[in-house]
Amino acid sequence: MLSLREEALHIHRTHQGKLEVKAKFPITNAEQLSLAYSPGVAEPCKEISQNRDHVYDYTMKGNSVAVVTDGTAVLGLGNIGPEAALPVMEGKAALFKCFAGVDAFPICLNTTDVDHIVQTVKWLEPTFGGINLEDIAAPNCFLIEERLKKELQIPVFHDDQHGTAIVTVAGLLNALKIVKKQLKDIKVVINGAGAAGIAIIKLLYRYGVRHIIMCDSKGAIFEGRPYGMNRMKEEVAKVTNPEKIEGPLQEVIKGADVFIGVSVAGALTKEMIRMMNDQPIIFAMANPVPEIMPEEAIEAGAAVIGTGRSDYPNQVNNVLAFPGIFRGALDVRAKQINEEMKIAAVEAIASLITENELQPNYVIPAPFDPRVAPAVAAAVAKAAIDTGVARIHIDPEEVASKTRQMAAIK
Amino acid sequence: MLSLREEALHIHRTHQGKLEVKAKFPITNAEQLSLAYSPGVAEPCKEISQNRDHVYDYTMKGNSVAVVTDGTAVLGLGNIGPEAALPVMEGKAALFKCFAGVDAFPICLNTTDVDHIVQTVKWLEPTFGGINLEDIAAPNCFLIEERLKKELQIPVFHDDQHGTAIVTVAGLLNALKIVKKQLKDIKVVINGAGAAGIAIIKLLYRYGVRHIIMCDSKGAIFEGRPYGMNRMKEEVAKVTNPEKIEGPLQEVIKGADVFIGVSVAGALTKEMIRMMNDQPIIFAMANPVPEIMPEEAIEAGAAVIGTGRSDYPNQVNNVLAFPGIFRGALDVRAKQINEEMKIAAVEAIASLITENELQPNYVIPAPFDPRVAPAVAAAVAKAAIDTGVARIHIDPEEVASKTRQMAAIK
Repeated sequence: MLSLREEALHIHRTHQGKLEVKAKFPITNAEQLSLAYSPGVAEPCKEISQNRDHVYDYTMKGNSVAVVTDGTAVLGLGNIGPEAALPVMEGKAALFKCFAGVDAFPICLNTTDVDHIVQTVKWLEPTFGGINLEDIAAPNCFLIEERLKKELQIPVFHDDQHGTAIVTVAGLLNALKIVKKQLKDIKVVINGAGAAGIAIIKLLYRYGVRHIIMCDSKGAIFEGRPYGMNRMKEEVAKVTNPEKIEGPLQEVIKGADVFIGVSVAGALTKEMIRMMNDQPIIFAMANPVPEIMPEEAIEAGAAVIGTGRSDYPNQVNNVLAFPGIFRGALDVRAKQINEEMKIAAVEAIASLITENELQPNYVIPAPFDPRVAPAVAAAVAKAAIDTGVARIHIDPEEVASKTRQMAAIK
Repeated sequence: MLSLREEALHIHRTHQGKLEVKAKFPITNAEQLSLAYSPGVAEPCKEISQNRDHVYDYTMKGNSVAVVTDGTAVLGLGNIGPEAALPVMEGKAALFKCFAGVDAFPICLNTTDVDHIVQTVKWLEPTFGGINLEDIAAPNCFLIEERLKKELQIPVFHDDQHGTAIVTVAGLLNALKIVKKQLKDIKVVINGAGAAGIAIIKLLYRYGVRHIIMCDSKGAIFEGRPYGMNRMKEEVAKVTNPEKIEGPLQEVIKGADVFIGVSVAGALTKEMIRMMNDQPIIFAMANPVPEIMPEEAIEAGAAVIGTGRSDYPNQVNNVLAFPGIFRGALDVRAKQINEEMKIAAVEAIASLITENELQPNYVIPAPFDPRVAPAVAAAVAKAAIDTGVARIHIDPEEVASKTRQMAAIK
């Protein structure tokens, strides 16, 4: 039997990658050629040159997403470069298609400079209806996303930040129902000060959570901490840890209701869980080995445990978010993906599990639950319309139905 | 019945463009996800990070071509911008796929600056195995191609120049057999000093043609002409019109054996053809209306006439060249498309018509002749190997057979 490694290499090698670009209709005779290419193609060209918005009517733009990376933070492998990042970007693009019918294409850039990346994506804008930033190291990922959101007329979304945050918070909302705690009362400790951790804090803050402490490898982050700070951590410090608690994770974890790990294998111990508040909720999302294994967390008293792994319940998998988010944003030709649209995605994911179905092992829908992308797409489209960033208005029910039709996941 | 215009708009609108990006194999369950994405995808990533050449083994790079434009010279429509150029680039990409199984993707750039375009394409290099420049106005197209050829490790090909030149010269070789004239003896007049005309001159020169005069709207171009010159025309003047003949087309056409029009409708008259040498050969390639209509050319004594039109014989259509050229270049992982590879393409196209089959109405194979792309691909691959620009060696027969298999044109 082949190992996972052998099988993964084999499938990539025999297919020469995972993506192909296909014509939507055949061009195998002169008549088809005259319609799809010269001379007929001049007609949509003329329409668009007279009114640039028609590019959405006659081209692939409205369904195209660039999956943009510089290869600096690929999976857990780090800065492996744009060529080595290509298999991940192809995989991401394949997921976009299979889960929501989005035509995504890998753009692996041979530069790691913020200005260069921003400039390149701006020059690429005409072809694409949206930009998914992927596996770009902090702090550049924040700077690039911030600038592109301002400078582009199409949605920009850094999935490593927001995708993870959306799915985590959806799971947390459901977990809190199980332990009967309120967002405003809980104390949350987040371990890991990377892109995902910071996005989770921003989203929790919007949800009214006020007792948050973020730890990095040097312990709790607080405003004015004289060591190991950067611009993003300074911003985090402004809205977290108001009491300026100092110390390592094993200190600050005391009395916490929720642990969210976006750090490294083994960072959380049973002893730490035992120091938490009653019915602690654990999201241990280090990949492939979580901060603590689910069995151990449960032994130590965890009420709910989620991980990034497919072989345990409650998998925090971005695939629950990004396909539907872009599907909804593209369908209404949204100019951006704003906070309201992200929250709509959180609520859509969380509410797929009814109060009756909720249980500690089922606070997050399964990755291949075919209801997810249509529900997320519809909710995101509605939020875009409601907040005025949609260029066209469609019935959200139609968005859901179109998503179901386009997805390979049935 | 719908007009061509209505039908073309309809087909573009109902399909929302012409291209889609598909997964080569499904990702609809957890096992497929674990191979194509996390955690399995880390394995090809690691292989490539250890040896960048493996990007050709495990990704789509080796079969991907960027169709790059700035929208400045689209069809006969001129500078209509990158959005309005997208239907043409999608069409081109669809032809790449249908004729030779190449996965091409439109890159419509929101800049017309040479440095910006060169820089963007360099940053995009990791994803692509080749670059097809398209519909970029002269003289920028020359500068961009020249610089990219030097600075990239993958083939760069400006189809408007070389595709047209290759097919025209292939047709000319066959036409000369019919009129029994030799390349070294003929006098050629080229009307139109754009990208295609200049590329045709370069290729004819390599074939030993020494009596060439190029005309622009101001008449014959010669070295030191004190009006209407630019860098490219100066270069053309160095290898053409050694006698510095001055005057309009109706003067310089006298005694010519071959007229090649890459100019405007109606530029050539019957009277001019009557002033040409015996058995004149006419390639009147202005689109959609040629420099002279075939019926009139024949009335005036043309021995062979070719146009860009699909409703007349001898269609000079780039689709005879670019799919096979890139197929061959990609299959041997060529670092560039050099002159020898272009000449191999000329010979492959010309030699598909045997001496027995040759006739004035059949000097160029039909666009949908399924033998063309495999023959061109094999010849180009062989030339790449022979000239040392191939990274891997494959039997040209295998290249041909793979092309037949991948093409939708059967």
